[in-house]
Amino acid sequence: MSKSLRVVAVAVLPLLLASLPASAAGKNSAAGKTMADVLAASKPSDWRPLDPNNTLYMDLPAGRIVIELQPEFAPKHAANLRALARAKYFDGLAITRSQDNYVVQWGDSNANKPLGEAKKALPPEFIRPAAGLKFTALPDPDTYAAQTGFVNGFPVARESEQGSAWLVHCYGMVGAGRDNDVGSGSGAELYVVSGNAPRNLDRNITLVGRVLQGMDVLSTMPRGKGAMGFYQKPEERTPITQIKLAADVPAAERANLEVLKTDTQTFTDLVESRRNRQDEWYKVPAGRIDVCNVPLPVRKAK
Amino acid sequence: MSKSLRVVAVAVLPLLLASLPASAAGKNSAAGKTMADVLAASKPSDWRPLDPNNTLYMDLPAGRIVIELQPEFAPKHAANLRALARAKYFDGLAITRSQDNYVVQWGDSNANKPLGEAKKALPPEFIRPAAGLKFTALPDPDTYAAQTGFVNGFPVARESEQGSAWLVHCYGMVGAGRDNDVGSGSGAELYVVSGNAPRNLDRNITLVGRVLQGMDVLSTMPRGKGAMGFYQKPEERTPITQIKLAADVPAAERANLEVLKTDTQTFTDLVESRRNRQDEWYKVPAGRIDVCNVPLPVRKAK
Repeated sequence: MSKSLRVVAVAVLPLLLASLPASAAGKNSAAGKTMADVLAASKPSDWRPLDPNNTLYMDLPAGRIVIELQPEFAPKHAANLRALARAKYFDGLAITRSQDNYVVQWGDSNANKPLGEAKKALPPEFIRPAAGLKFTALPDPDTYAAQTGFVNGFPVARESEQGSAWLVHCYGMVGAGRDNDVGSGSGAELYVVSGNAPRNLDRNITLVGRVLQGMDVLSTMPRGKGAMGFYQKPEERTPITQIKLAADVPAAERANLEVLKTDTQTFTDLVESRRNRQDEWYKVPAGRIDVCNVPLPVRKAK
Repeated sequence: MSKSLRVVAVAVLPLLLASLPASAAGKNSAAGKTMADVLAASKPSDWRPLDPNNTLYMDLPAGRIVIELQPEFAPKHAANLRALARAKYFDGLAITRSQDNYVVQWGDSNANKPLGEAKKALPPEFIRPAAGLKFTALPDPDTYAAQTGFVNGFPVARESEQGSAWLVHCYGMVGAGRDNDVGSGSGAELYVVSGNAPRNLDRNITLVGRVLQGMDVLSTMPRGKGAMGFYQKPEERTPITQIKLAADVPAAERANLEVLKTDTQTFTDLVESRRNRQDEWYKVPAGRIDVCNVPLPVRKAK
């Protein structure tokens, strides 16, 4: 069985996002360490809890999906999602689409349901100024952007320090569907990236957050047989029991997760441990890493 | 429903691989064309049939998976897989692993079964000389390799024209598991990439081919709860009815597929149509494309 276990010798964590201060300092402290070594040596202060006001729970029959919102990039969509959750807008709606190597989608922006305090449509939040962000740059070259990196644990690209910045379509990132009109999205329909990073979507649609827990449930939804992976029959859809804001759930019932901070030496070391694998199995270190291949560890709070 | 359909407006074909001659000529002929336009204008000579000697059928309860081998890069592994199929080695084995955003794996290199003409272990076929390959270069920059492109429809990277070349770990690519010893693989255990391209595996393991049909079945296998996504209980495994070489199946029973050739103007145009989307939905063209985001169209032969 040892062969089986080593066939492709990596333990990929629930979501693949992380951070790297753009200095060479981390390389030395990470030398020879595997990701497991780095995580074992992490300090409690390297981790942050989730903000209940930026955390959504989507309850499906198979379990709870935990989504973290990123209001530094999509404040209007984050606010609208809080309002939609409070209006119980999603409760009773469904997973409507599962397209192989692309996205899984849920909700319905045309559902005849009360919106509460939410808006029917929002201006686009595709990009924002890079200035003002605590951007941790990745030195590795990228096919699509001048620079990639991380902001508060989310994968980000930017033109330059003074240019525009945007969230990146990595696996597990969640966005708000829209029509051809860039101002037609609202968050009432959401999608998650479930395949190879579709970076061509960057700057064309509003990303609102990412899945921290339960991605395995979403990514294995049977693929829809209709155009673009839409389910053709209502019974093929998985119902959404509810989507709630964590802040509206009693503290004792919240998912007690914490995320490795992306502005720490531990994270710098983690990225280096993934850029140049130290596991015995690897013979040729990659030497570089793509922003969407950097893991972002999530764990139960201690 | 129009909003739903346009949320992420692309029709991703079964597998995402393609080709681009390294000239600017294609850009002009592709200007303003969508991928659908390009495919509609393709000629019969732009497509090639599958070679039955390089095609495997893996039959699962949910249907047939079609795998194309690439003997230009892995001739020993391709020969061994033909021998293993003829020995009925895989028949009755199972899918043993499904790790989210990474790989799905099947077979068992330690199964106590007759090997027929197959070998128990093979030397590594991780790289080969670039010289001698009909390499169609992609001009777009890549994080991991000096150059990427395509060889006979497969995604490839190379150091230089005279350096080494290797198959790339894009979604849908199939490889042969190995132990820490680089010479321990045989093809008796196989994996397919089912998540964001794990390019760190490039040059560390032998890729043998790619899935042309049925990737949706493999990618939705329930994730294993054991370490690295291995199933913990035998009943969680999906049995493999059989793996056969297409050449050993009567012609009338073969999957009658054809693949768009990667050394054609049609393919050049297709890549450009994906690099800079012409669909009305897109507002900001990406301008560049990653080798693993280029689609490789597969269709029923006419």
